[in-house]
Amino acid sequence: MSETGLAVKTNHPTIDFDLESYLHARSAAVDRALDGYLKRYAERSGTIWQAMHYGLFPGGKRIRPILLLAAGEIFGGARKALLPFACAVEMIHGYSLIHDDLPALDNDDLRRGAPTNHKVYGEGIALLAGDGLLTEAFHVMSGPEVLKLVPAQLVLQLVHELSHAVGVAGLVGGQAFDLEAERREVDIGVVEYIHVRKTGALIRASLRLGAQVAGAKPAELRRISRFGECLGLAFQIADDILDILGETAPGESAESGHSEWNKATFPSVIGIAAAQQRLAALRDQCLRELQPFGASAEPLRAISRQVAARALTMNGQLPNKEMQS
Amino acid sequence: MSETGLAVKTNHPTIDFDLESYLHARSAAVDRALDGYLKRYAERSGTIWQAMHYGLFPGGKRIRPILLLAAGEIFGGARKALLPFACAVEMIHGYSLIHDDLPALDNDDLRRGAPTNHKVYGEGIALLAGDGLLTEAFHVMSGPEVLKLVPAQLVLQLVHELSHAVGVAGLVGGQAFDLEAERREVDIGVVEYIHVRKTGALIRASLRLGAQVAGAKPAELRRISRFGECLGLAFQIADDILDILGETAPGESAESGHSEWNKATFPSVIGIAAAQQRLAALRDQCLRELQPFGASAEPLRAISRQVAARALTMNGQLPNKEMQS
Repeated sequence: MSETGLAVKTNHPTIDFDLESYLHARSAAVDRALDGYLKRYAERSGTIWQAMHYGLFPGGKRIRPILLLAAGEIFGGARKALLPFACAVEMIHGYSLIHDDLPALDNDDLRRGAPTNHKVYGEGIALLAGDGLLTEAFHVMSGPEVLKLVPAQLVLQLVHELSHAVGVAGLVGGQAFDLEAERREVDIGVVEYIHVRKTGALIRASLRLGAQVAGAKPAELRRISRFGECLGLAFQIADDILDILGETAPGESAESGHSEWNKATFPSVIGIAAAQQRLAALRDQCLRELQPFGASAEPLRAISRQVAARALTMNGQLPNKEMQS
Repeated sequence: MSETGLAVKTNHPTIDFDLESYLHARSAAVDRALDGYLKRYAERSGTIWQAMHYGLFPGGKRIRPILLLAAGEIFGGARKALLPFACAVEMIHGYSLIHDDLPALDNDDLRRGAPTNHKVYGEGIALLAGDGLLTEAFHVMSGPEVLKLVPAQLVLQLVHELSHAVGVAGLVGGQAFDLEAERREVDIGVVEYIHVRKTGALIRASLRLGAQVAGAKPAELRRISRFGECLGLAFQIADDILDILGETAPGESAESGHSEWNKATFPSVIGIAAAQQRLAALRDQCLRELQPFGASAEPLRAISRQVAARALTMNGQLPNKEMQS
């Protein structure tokens, strides 16, 4: 079974799912919607607007909004209702990257091969561009056009959930804990604690938002949540393995001035082989959680495989054959 | 008529309104509510939590949440329904101060006589504490306890309005424009453009949120909006005059390494006397907008007078007698 080729085969032999085409189409839809939101501002000729735009374009793989759309599609969600939330999670991701790159945190000069926001616009404007994107995420979710498609009470619940996932109990808390962990010895429990918050919370929330907009039932939502927890951790472990082995992970940057071995990551704490073992197990658990959803979950299945594939195949130390679930 | 004493008399001779007691009681209620929100986090022993707490306590005059409560009280709003929104605007104010003080922007070492957040916790944690407070503001507004008291559709509308007021079209955009203005000559139009966004938008939004939670009718809301625009500008002009004359304005800090004359302010562009003239006119317009609300608007009237009073009396260059409206 190919895990790197264009056509990723699945457990459902009747489906020949083309992941690359799927990702490309969803990514293009997200790009168009993001561009539309940013264009609403009359101040669009100003530097701050340019810096916000630069923080979103050209984008990475748009993995979070695509996960949101893919989760929504399982339950028959309409693209138009899902897109504002997809844009919100991508804006939040964009803000977190801009702030993360600042000298106050990672002090990175490059992201995805291009100068970071503060290298282009200066630290002050970059700081504000991040603030602007975070704020805009909540503006987009609460807009009147959303209210025409999604009940107000549900939208509010999603605002509440997303702000929890990316606040002090989630993304922001994880980044703070990570920053402090750089100064001391960490065990694998601390590493997982950081990852669950810093990367996992927004990935899980993206999937849950999509499912909820599309009307997933409570038991279905719990399954999507568990899938999101596994995928989020798999995503981070894969990223860290590829960082150390010198490759850039899908959708993320490995452009860092730090030695990756000094950071709180799975491979630096438990070694590459054990990290790969954990990654394979997480991928298999992802696939198990998706099983009841049948063919409609094929995009999420293919994404789970792709996230793991490159970090597992590079060294060939581990059996790459996925568990038949 | 005393404008600095404890008992501020009014146009309504039957009322002897004690502004200091009013401010003290509202400020204490806001403090209790803010503390309660922050305490909800299990991570409260962590540094990020401490930095967020330090960003809110000890507070300044809590002028924005008090304006929100005072506007809500005009229309009979319940304290319990207003407080979450009051806390949200104060969290946003707190975040903006932390980020504003960072080396990337104003590079201030002191605020309200104490070391700034990044001086205590380092730049990385301070950056994240600001991010955390901004995020928490939206978390607080969208909570289930709010939904018991305010209709979901209205809450969403307020999330939308507040995120607009403090985003790229408001606070964030104003700060960015201000940052760029430091490098070039500015005229009074540019100064007003910056103030309307950087300070005015959140003050206006605070008042509008309070009025809307309390069920103000459209015409009443328009009046509150106009009041907020005048008060916001008056607030900034008073602050700038006091900065230059070497005093700290109420609720704001004048602890800055910059020469105030180099900043884009009313007194530095049109001179102190003309700035005082504009301030007096704005105060009078504030009082006119409040007239139809009778005694229930007494707190906002007294606040309008107090904001202007110190910046007008210092030099004694201008007649301080307010227009009889």
